[in-house]
Formats: sequence, structure tokens, C-alpha cells
Amino acid sequence: MHHFTELSDVPDPHKLLDQAQLIKNNPVGNQQIGKNKTIVLLFFNPSLRTRISTEKAALNLNMSCIVYDASQGWKLEFEKGITMNTDRAEHIQEAAAVISQYADIIGIRTFPSLIDKEKDYSDAILRQFQKYASVPIISLESAIRHPLQSLADWITIEEFKEKKQPKVVLTWAPHPKALPQAVSNSFLEWMQIADVDLMITHPKGYELAPEFSSGIPTEYDQEKAFENADFIYAKNWSSYEQYGQRLAVRENWTVTPEKMARTNNAYFMHCLPVRRNVVVADEVIESDRSLVISQANNRTFAAQAVIQEILKLL
Amino acid sequence: MHHFTELSDVPDPHKLLDQAQLIKNNPVGNQQIGKNKTIVLLFFNPSLRTRISTEKAALNLNMSCIVYDASQGWKLEFEKGITMNTDRAEHIQEAAAVISQYADIIGIRTFPSLIDKEKDYSDAILRQFQKYASVPIISLESAIRHPLQSLADWITIEEFKEKKQPKVVLTWAPHPKALPQAVSNSFLEWMQIADVDLMITHPKGYELAPEFSSGIPTEYDQEKAFENADFIYAKNWSSYEQYGQRLAVRENWTVTPEKMARTNNAYFMHCLPVRRNVVVADEVIESDRSLVISQANNRTFAAQAVIQEILKLL
Amino acid sequence: MHHFTELSDVPDPHKLLDQAQLIKNNPVGNQQIGKNKTIVLLFFNPSLRTRISTEKAALNLNMSCIVYDASQGWKLEFEKGITMNTDRAEHIQEAAAVISQYADIIGIRTFPSLIDKEKDYSDAILRQFQKYASVPIISLESAIRHPLQSLADWITIEEFKEKKQPKVVLTWAPHPKALPQAVSNSFLEWMQIADVDLMITHPKGYELAPEFSSGIPTEYDQEKAFENADFIYAKNWSSYEQYGQRLAVRENWTVTPEKMARTNNAYFMHCLPVRRNVVVADEVIESDRSLVISQANNRTFAAQAVIQEILKLL
Repeated sequence: MHHFTELSDVPDPHKLLDQAQLIKNNPVGNQQIGKNKTIVLLFFNPSLRTRISTEKAALNLNMSCIVYDASQGWKLEFEKGITMNTDRAEHIQEAAAVISQYADIIGIRTFPSLIDKEKDYSDAILRQFQKYASVPIISLESAIRHPLQSLADWITIEEFKEKKQPKVVLTWAPHPKALPQAVSNSFLEWMQIADVDLMITHPKGYELAPEFSSGIPTEYDQEKAFENADFIYAKNWSSYEQYGQRLAVRENWTVTPEKMARTNNAYFMHCLPVRRNVVVADEVIESDRSLVISQANNRTFAAQAVIQEILKLL
Repeated sequence: MHHFTELSDVPDPHKLLDQAQLIKNNPVGNQQIGKNKTIVLLFFNPSLRTRISTEKAALNLNMSCIVYDASQGWKLEFEKGITMNTDRAEHIQEAAAVISQYADIIGIRTFPSLIDKEKDYSDAILRQFQKYASVPIISLESAIRHPLQSLADWITIEEFKEKKQPKVVLTWAPHPKALPQAVSNSFLEWMQIADVDLMITHPKGYELAPEFSSGIPTEYDQEKAFENADFIYAKNWSSYEQYGQRLAVRENWTVTPEKMARTNNAYFMHCLPVRRNVVVADEVIESDRSLVISQANNRTFAAQAVIQEILKLL
Repeated sequence: MHHFTELSDVPDPHKLLDQAQLIKNNPVGNQQIGKNKTIVLLFFNPSLRTRISTEKAALNLNMSCIVYDASQGWKLEFEKGITMNTDRAEHIQEAAAVISQYADIIGIRTFPSLIDKEKDYSDAILRQFQKYASVPIISLESAIRHPLQSLADWITIEEFKEKKQPKVVLTWAPHPKALPQAVSNSFLEWMQIADVDLMITHPKGYELAPEFSSGIPTEYDQEKAFENADFIYAKNWSSYEQYGQRLAVRENWTVTPEKMARTNNAYFMHCLPVRRNVVVADEVIESDRSLVISQANNRTFAAQAVIQEILKLL
């Protein structure tokens, strides 16, 4: 594996899953591979879990980790051929090449505009970094995907599943702000290779991009979707059709104990941070079927497996 | 010792003092204990000394140290049962549990509101972190205490004292802004177990909270208080009674050479940062009896002793 | 070498150059010297290259590196004898002494006001840190010099030069903002000891400070200056005479392929970040004669040589 930006970058995802599980049993058992290697983590948006879990993964591997907050004081130009006489101080072409001089691996966190669908779905910032960097790139969430989250989610489902092929339901949930589709897109991408029975439920108008959702059963009735579910994965996202918009939704899509009662005693999952009593009721997230903290914990081992696989080929 | 948030967390404070002094003689002599351990430092307010001295202490112990500036881009909800539909993106209950997945110890820096006395004096943010985290918590200054500072102050007094039971005077001093009472509260808390003759002096209206000050002699005449003093510890704080207010004070409470001349050639102490010629005159802070830089230096060994004691029980 | 703030701090610059070249061949070959040593990097301005390359250099030497962003939440007072009752919370005298307690070396990045020429050219912030710190100081760019950049530039010229004494031309270039003179000043300072034939070219009114430029041939006709050049070093700077101003300049001073065609197939250099098609045309910076990424790469080895030489004397 060279880059890690989407599922198709991974030659053998099931082997990566196995690696992550092995690492979880002994997180500091492979420190020779990271010695004298440096990972630079570049954040164009604030991050808690991704920042700390990825740094922790690097430290477990005995790597040096340099975290750079790119959201302040440094605006990048992404257009080719432009006369740079406004406020953008550096072109991506130099920035990516320069950081590559100091890093063995670069991690990048970007965010969608939620305005320009075409640009967001070309994943322009990530792809330009990838183009102009001379070292492997790990996506720490891009405009449209969050593969480290999905790998951690998969590890978690494998850990807790109580039958060979559990029913996993991705449910839309309310949120006061317009959010990206990245976590949901990636979850669908990865769950299609997992041994699960996958279903999506959301209000009409919240259909995800066909490149991620096509072929996956969609049920507009949330309560019906929850029937027999073994895992409920809740997430808000803004509309893909009316791009980046929050639509008027009258129904209450909050995940409540009543709705969970319709499931097969399902586990509750969310990538966090979560708005309590908007996305999910206190009783659900605090129940012993809530996996949100385990998911966060598995972020470390997902990142560590990815970094380790990349280091093996350096 | 599990947590370190106040004096009563420390089973044997004198032993902790001894440890700090031993560490000062050989700061890198105990690196096995920190190997593959991670401390996460979480700052809800800017910090120079605490940030760098605690990171230095962790590095001396061969730990990994992850510093997270929580003051930007991430607002926590602390109320239970609330519907999180405003600007607070994550509940303390998840945040503390999540960070616990990545840290062996969490250090937290919080600040009082200086508006809501009851809430500040319940030390709500610190206590909720403590409640919801699954790992030990070190206070890097809370709404009402700053125990690492007080331990460093105690180390410093022990280093420089010229008699068995020196007279130590905590004096209020002027300041252009309303400041917390944390440093002063903690200083009183810790000095009561130190072998010193403790006195407080401040203008009327600046009485500290009874839970910290009761039983300690208070002298409203600063010059009288300074008589025979061996250590002058200057600090501004806002009013506890008229909570968080700066009161009209006509007298000049700046610590001057003239006032120091009334002491028993006392040492001058302050936790820094200090407003020169407001809190203390240049001549005093620059004199060879000024201990402010030694206090700052001892912050490292205070933090290191605390971390080391906590690691011993992990 | 104790401090590293300007050329005259370096006892033997040619030996330092040799060291940097040796380090480049084996960046992690000397880790014993940095063990248990700490460098604190203090940034009063945002920095990408300097921040990451210096941290990388420290990590290559097995040092601990603590990065502190001093641009937020912490205003320093630099005047002596002042009554500190405004917004400046700490005096440089304490700040420098305190950080010295935690650091074996302090790196500092400051910036000119571009308003007060006399103050800027006294390099007040850097010099006060140097005065009040008790440990060696490395300039990570000051108001008027950027010696780590110049050392990296020198390494780069030595690496690529195709004749014993190449012609090196420092050319002014346009920019939408008023920029410091630091990079240009330092470049002139260091190039005078390099084995090069140095020339400056800029529009009238952009004469650099005599302390840096006197004795160096200046050619106001850029095209003429480029003739027979082996290295073109482009940089914008604001006026020294009309201090900190951008003057009305009608001519187009952008470095274009047409102008480069007048040179002796010269290499193109710039310290980055660079405004494409303002300072330099895309075709020039993307050509195989562009050394900008090599310059950035050599920043690590310049910093590492400097840190290593300082550590040798600690």
C-alpha cells in the first residue's frame, strides 16, 4: 500500500483488518519499523480524535510526529496558472513538495465547501496534495471520505458482532448544522466488502451520492429499517441533491430507546462528536450497547495498521 | 496517588516533595517508568509555563506528550440531559472517555468564569473530566486551584529557607485585569502543611474563600504584615465576596523596595506572568532575593514528581 | 558556536557548511549528542518550512522539540522600566529567563514592524531574548536576518554550482504585500563569504540597508544583470529608504523564461513561499533548473548543523 485515501488504495482490506486487530493486542510491539521515520499531520480543520489517535499511532510505532495546523495564517492556492496576487501565499505545488522533504508520510485533513459539489466530489485538495507530494498520503478525512474512521468502524463491528452476517443500518439523524457526507460515504464504501447485511435509512432528499450508495437497499421508514438490525450506525449529513443544504424535515429522526427496541438488541455506533438528544438520546448512547468509545479507541489501531503497511514499502 | 487536583489527592505530600527534590538532582534518571506511556495535555486557556514545564517533565520521563489546544474550534457541553442543538459540538462525557482511550494520564487546564461563583467553586469542568475519564487526571490549573504551582512554590521555599519555620506572607497586589483566585487558594492549601508561619495581607473586600483562608491570620495593613517576613508571595486576585470584581482600591499595594526593607531580608516570590511596576517594582523582581525564575524552574520537577507517582500505580 | 543569529556568530562558516553536507549524507548518524536535550521553538509569526524543518532537524538529533505558538494569547512587553498596566502580560526579561529553564536551546521567530526602521534594525526582540535568556538562541528569522535560510541557500549553491566561482544575482521581484528585507539581507551577508560573483538588481528606491549591501555591485537594469548569471535568486522586499513601503514600480520585474534565457542557463532560487506569476512565472519555477525544493530540503540540514555545533559546546 502506498497511499491511503479510499478503499481501492488497499490491496487487501481483510489483511489490513487483521493487522489492526493484531496491533490492538500489542500496540508497541513493532517499534523498529517506525524508527527515524517522520509523519507530518496537516490539519486544514480542527480535529480531536483524528489528531490524537493518529499521533498516538505514530508514537506507538516509535515515529516522530509533527502536527501542523494549516487553518491559520497560511492560505494555499490550488488553481493552476493563476497570478497569485491576492491573499493566497503559497501554491499547493510547492507546499506539497516542500512538506515531502521533511516527511516520510503526510496525513491531511481537509473539508468540503458544501457549496461546489463538483469540486468537492473531485476531492480536489487531497488529490492535488497526492499529485504534488513525493511521499505517501494518508487521508485524515477528505471532502468526501473518512477511510480511517471506516476502518475503525469495521474493526469495531468485527469485535462485537454476534452472528456471521449481522444487519447493519446506516441511519440519517438530525443535526443543527449542515455536515459533510464523508463519514457516511466511506462507511458505505467499506461496509460493502465487510460480511454484513447493509441498509440505509434517511428522509427523502438525503440520498447519498450514487457512487457510494448505488446497490444498497434504502428504506425511507426509519422504524421499519431498524427491525432486526444488529448495528445502528447514526450520522447526520447534508443533502447531496440540494448540495450542502439542510432540508426541512418534520419527522423526528433522533435515535431513541423506543426505536432501538425495534432492533435485534442492536449496538449503537457513531463516529463522534455527537449532539446528544439531537442525533441520539442520552439513554441510547449511555447504554451498554453503545460502541462509540470503542470506535474511538479503534481509531488508533486503524491508523497504526495503515501507517505500518505504508512503512513496509518505504 | 491516582488523580492530582488538590492537596487531599496526595497520600503523602512530604514524600512528594522529597521526590521532586530527588528528580531535580537527576531529571532523566527514571526513564523506564515513562516508556510507551502517553500524557495528553488539554488546554482550554493559553499557557506558557504550565505547557512547557509539564511537557518537559513528561519528556524527561521518556513519555510521549500530546498537547491539544482545546480553546479553538471545539466547544464542550457540560450540562446533563440537554438537547445539544446550539454551538457546543461534543459532550464532556464523550470527550473525556475518548481522550482516555489515547492517554495514560490527562492533564487539564481550565479557568473560572469569574461570574458564577457557585459553578466555579464546584470546579465543574475539572470534576466532570475526572468523573468521565477512565485515566488519572492532573490539574494544570482549574477554576479554583493550581496545585502544580503550589508544589513548585513549596519546593522553592524549602530550597531557600534560612530558618526552620520561616514567616511566609501572601500579599494581594494590584493588577489591571480581574484575575482568578486559583493560585492564592492553592498556595494557602499547601502552605498549611508546610513548616511555615503563614499570613495573608490584602485590602478589605479581597478576603479569599473561607474553605481556603479560614484559620490563617489576616493583616489588612500590608506594611505591618511585611514585618519580619522571610518570604513575600505576591499575587493579584479578584474579589471572592463581590465575585470576580476588581474593587476600587486607593492604596498602592505594589511590592516596592521600601516595603521589602521592612521584611527580614525576605525573598520575593510570584508565579508569573507578572506585571512589572504594578504587582512588583523592577528593583524587587530583579534583586538577588527574587525567586521567580527558580519557581518557574521547579515547575518541571513538581510536574515530574506528580506524573511519576501516578505512573507507579498504573 | 554559542548563539546563531548572524554570520558573525559562526567561528568557521566553511566548517559549518561542511558539517551540513555531512549531515545530509547521514541525517540520523549523530543521535547521541541530542539525547535528553530539549529545544523550544518560539514563533511570534506563522511558519511552515522553518517550523517543520527545524523540528525535523531536532528529531534527527534525537532531541525533544517543544513548539510554542507565541502569536496567540500572550503579549510580551519589551520596554524597560514601564508600568505594565495595559495588555502586555509578561516582560521579555521573565519570559526569556523562564523558557531558559526548560530549554537547552531556544529558537525564535520574530518579524519586523516595517514601520519603525530604527527599532527593526536594532533587531530588538531577538536581541532582548538573547540578553535575558541563559541558553543559546537560534534565530528562526528575525526582523532583519534569516540566517538558517541563507545557510541552506549556500548549501544548495555549493551542491549545484557548475563552476568554481558562479555569478549569483539577487533580483528584486514584485509582490502584492510589503515584505521584510530579512531574507535578502542575510543572503547578501552569507554570499560575501561564499566563492561567488555576487550582484544585486532592483528598481531604484529598493536599495537594501548599507550594512548589508555596501560594496556589492548593483545593476538597475534587470535584464542586463541576468547576463551570464549562473544562479538567479528572486525575492521581494519592501523599501528600506521609504521604510516598509511598496513603491510604485511600473516595470515588470517578474522572473520570466525570456529573462532566464539571457542567463548562462541559470538555476532559479527562491526561499518560498512564492507567488507564482507575480514573483516568477510557472515555466521558470517548474523547470528542471528550479532549485526551490532543494533549498527547502536543505533547511533541515542547515538547522541540524547549527544545532549540532551549539550542542557540542553545551
